[in-house]
Amino acid sequence: MVTSPIVNTYPLSSYTFGTKEPKMEKDSSVADRLARMKLNYMKEGMRTSVEGILLVQEHNHPHILLLQIGNTFCKLPGGRLKPGENEIEGLKRKLSSKLAANSPGLQPNWQIGECVAIWWRPNFETIMYPYCPPHITKPKECKKLFVVHLTEREYFAVPKNLKLLAVPLFELYDNVQRYGPVISTIPQQLSRFQFNMIHP
Amino acid sequence: MVTSPIVNTYPLSSYTFGTKEPKMEKDSSVADRLARMKLNYMKEGMRTSVEGILLVQEHNHPHILLLQIGNTFCKLPGGRLKPGENEIEGLKRKLSSKLAANSPGLQPNWQIGECVAIWWRPNFETIMYPYCPPHITKPKECKKLFVVHLTEREYFAVPKNLKLLAVPLFELYDNVQRYGPVISTIPQQLSRFQFNMIHP
Repeated sequence: MVTSPIVNTYPLSSYTFGTKEPKMEKDSSVADRLARMKLNYMKEGMRTSVEGILLVQEHNHPHILLLQIGNTFCKLPGGRLKPGENEIEGLKRKLSSKLAANSPGLQPNWQIGECVAIWWRPNFETIMYPYCPPHITKPKECKKLFVVHLTEREYFAVPKNLKLLAVPLFELYDNVQRYGPVISTIPQQLSRFQFNMIHP
Repeated sequence: MVTSPIVNTYPLSSYTFGTKEPKMEKDSSVADRLARMKLNYMKEGMRTSVEGILLVQEHNHPHILLLQIGNTFCKLPGGRLKPGENEIEGLKRKLSSKLAANSPGLQPNWQIGECVAIWWRPNFETIMYPYCPPHITKPKECKKLFVVHLTEREYFAVPKNLKLLAVPLFELYDNVQRYGPVISTIPQQLSRFQFNMIHP
């Protein structure tokens, strides 16, 4: 039989959560965000962003860690690479900026695993596709999602303006209204993995 | 940078299509199908089915080969494994049964690649999930989807009661009404692949 890649997951209670100074959003509206994207594109070309899928378990079911801004909007931890930056190193930098304490001694041991999805933004618009659409020769953004293999214990420091949620796969699945097209299809992209639920 | 797995795709015109005797559906209704599934479950336990994602290109965009039954229903080539049958060998057997000429000399060289999705059927019902739902200890079916790497030229023989369609990813994406939850999210599951479109 074909073997599935394995993800070890530990209970949410294995992890410790503290807070740190707020990480404010750079833009106050979608229009501002797209305008800044356009400006950066003119300076640096296509934007590459990287995001991490951090998994824990509760009640023997995998949960994903999402950052909630305000009351509704959720996002994966991650962000934009610097021009020429390595994807793995850039994702580690972004994960630390969003989720690690400021002290260098408290940095989680980020183990970046499999790339599970690549999304393309053809225009300076919110819509993205899981392929570069035909006739689009200059996409504006490429976003890559990676599984992050967490170790058994970690300390996370969450910016005070954000909430860190552990959301079960069954809540994300088929819920594009609440989570958008990228996050709501993570369950399908993780379906090929075998979750090894460890109960320490 | 992280390298994506590669799929070589060739133009649809590289392949030759003939016909063969009809392969009738075993059941004439969804109710019959679920009843037969229940009977088989009692004899053999959980059903494992395997399906192949065969890719070609048209206009520099990947297309998937689907079998159309009647005017609307589409399915991937594949089927149920025999008890204890190896997944890869079973998928090759099913692909030949659905798409190969009867002559042994005309069998395509099936190269079964990556498993891209696993779907679970918790009950004797049509609904499936991309995870085994919590509290389900005895799922009724596990369905695995594999990329099939086609060589540059092949001869396919399509059963006379079926039509073989090459459907672009952009048509499948976000089109659950037409293609159902399993086929309509194949674009997201293939997004991590790099398509190497070969123009012979």
